[in-house]
Amino acid sequence: MGTYVLVHGAWHTGKELEPVAAAIRAAGHQAYTPTIKGNRPGDSKSTGLDEAIRSIVDYFIENDLSDVVLVGHSYGGMIITGVADRIHDRVRRLVYWNAFVPNNGESLIDMVPPPFARMFEAIAAERGDGSVVLPFQIWREAFINDADLDTAQRAYRVLNPHPLKTLTDTIVLKVNPAELTVAKSYVNCTEDTSLPHHHPWHPRLSQKLGLFRLIQVAGSHELCFSNPARLAQAILEAGRD
Amino acid sequence: MGTYVLVHGAWHTGKELEPVAAAIRAAGHQAYTPTIKGNRPGDSKSTGLDEAIRSIVDYFIENDLSDVVLVGHSYGGMIITGVADRIHDRVRRLVYWNAFVPNNGESLIDMVPPPFARMFEAIAAERGDGSVVLPFQIWREAFINDADLDTAQRAYRVLNPHPLKTLTDTIVLKVNPAELTVAKSYVNCTEDTSLPHHHPWHPRLSQKLGLFRLIQVAGSHELCFSNPARLAQAILEAGRD
Amino acid sequence: MGTYVLVHGAWHTGKELEPVAAAIRAAGHQAYTPTIKGNRPGDSKSTGLDEAIRSIVDYFIENDLSDVVLVGHSYGGMIITGVADRIHDRVRRLVYWNAFVPNNGESLIDMVPPPFARMFEAIAAERGDGSVVLPFQIWREAFINDADLDTAQRAYRVLNPHPLKTLTDTIVLKVNPAELTVAKSYVNCTEDTSLPHHHPWHPRLSQKLGLFRLIQVAGSHELCFSNPARLAQAILEAGRD
Repeated sequence: MGTYVLVHGAWHTGKELEPVAAAIRAAGHQAYTPTIKGNRPGDSKSTGLDEAIRSIVDYFIENDLSDVVLVGHSYGGMIITGVADRIHDRVRRLVYWNAFVPNNGESLIDMVPPPFARMFEAIAAERGDGSVVLPFQIWREAFINDADLDTAQRAYRVLNPHPLKTLTDTIVLKVNPAELTVAKSYVNCTEDTSLPHHHPWHPRLSQKLGLFRLIQVAGSHELCFSNPARLAQAILEAGRD
Repeated sequence: MGTYVLVHGAWHTGKELEPVAAAIRAAGHQAYTPTIKGNRPGDSKSTGLDEAIRSIVDYFIENDLSDVVLVGHSYGGMIITGVADRIHDRVRRLVYWNAFVPNNGESLIDMVPPPFARMFEAIAAERGDGSVVLPFQIWREAFINDADLDTAQRAYRVLNPHPLKTLTDTIVLKVNPAELTVAKSYVNCTEDTSLPHHHPWHPRLSQKLGLFRLIQVAGSHELCFSNPARLAQAILEAGRD
Repeated sequence: MGTYVLVHGAWHTGKELEPVAAAIRAAGHQAYTPTIKGNRPGDSKSTGLDEAIRSIVDYFIENDLSDVVLVGHSYGGMIITGVADRIHDRVRRLVYWNAFVPNNGESLIDMVPPPFARMFEAIAAERGDGSVVLPFQIWREAFINDADLDTAQRAYRVLNPHPLKTLTDTIVLKVNPAELTVAKSYVNCTEDTSLPHHHPWHPRLSQKLGLFRLIQVAGSHELCFSNPARLAQAILEAGRD
């Protein structure tokens, strides 16, 4: 069976993807949930994008992973793009799940509307340690709109402040995703409103992949909390040959 | 548990939302289904928008309703926006279900394509009593496309001629919905074709709410007839904290 | 009960729609699955669009079919539009299932992005017998993205080379579909990525029908292979009065 590596989004760690990984394992696969440098307990909040990408490259090498279906959520799209660019021979397929798709020279901030970028920078300036957090009301209404309040609150409590530099650093790629000779899929949660409707995930970002497989599933940006088993099914449909 | 007030659309009365209200009550909530002035048996078809809004404000006061999840369908979006502007302290959350979202000074007619406006005015001119009706073929194909013919016909027979003035009057608001400090949700039926695809409900109208919670559900503009229990579930997901 | 005629798309024959027809028959209807001239074993690959349309007109006459719900898939939309234009008195309703909708004087190639047209012409030039085939990778990722690999491979093996002339010939119609006085429906598979997202099936092509009934269903362009029973249900909801 296959090997899945699930790369979390901003403010998360790998631990929040464990219920998804468990459902993938129950279907007979191996599943790993590393935490990106900058989001681990004690990590410096001045971590940049290159260090973040390298931490997942190192994870592949330390665990001797190959033939991997590499899944990235949201900010994790920056990471898996960078990992595949550096060690594409270890990657069987890339799966972007409501994830950013950068071309060479782009940052995550380049792909969000200017008011979001300004909000992040204002929050980071107030915090003073290089990190950004998400106000609860935005989280509840626009990120986890499909969950009940209790789930939304429990999930919010495990989030960690995210290093802003990983969002503003531009990525360095040898080839853009559309030219990368690795199979690609995009999982789109159809009620994901974390980006506004005139700046959607799909098809605005997905089409930067060139030929890709689309899988859609009902749910918010945070389906990992509201329905991890259903998300795992979508990832398996996206990740199979 | 919560208190839901369901405000119907043009041509309807509260009675048509009773099956939805029953499913909301079965989940442990209170649910009310008032009929807007202009749509009650015997009402003058020259009723205007302000009178229509005031009739629901009066309903709140007569029934001493507070902490209300106020739901509006279609034209009902004009009404709940006006009610919340006048008595926002009685409203816990606004839920727009494929509903119009007006800013100050807008009429419903301003938010539909010009051919629709001309059709309504031509029908009203022919009827001569200030009311407008919907041709059956448009109702069957574009409003209740998800139902069988028998359901479509039975539903059509209970519709009442709608006062055109409520659709052409402009609304007077102290603040636009995006600035209103009340929580907001939008329920979007994904097969609603009552507005044409280049003039959609969502995101064209929903985004006028500012920060809002999106809930989507399969179904036509008239899901209250074709699947009231499923609609009730969507309203509860939209209406909870 | 009703009479359904299912008209396949490019590269297919009627046989691939038999599982869909079987589910329609199980609901109490008659269902026919003719193969268009140009796709039958031994047919010349220089068959043009007019001959292709006439072969289905002939099928109606030979089988004395009337009061038909006429369903077309993809390229089959060209055919059913032509058939209805010639013998509209035998057609009860047209159902376009992720199908092309031509106006008078348009070809299928006019409705696809220029790179697709160039790819088809390059493949046909290489083959030299007037036919075009689809590369497996495009089939697997963009046409049958919802199936497992085994289903995708089995389906690919039954495809037949398609006569390019049927795709480049312009159609001759007495009236455009929007003016045709026959009821019309559009079935849209929501994960159909066989046309790119800036050139979608719905609403770009569906709106050429004028007033029509929209039915949506989860699935790829090739739902006939991945879930024929679910497709049959959608066709029945589209085809009923």
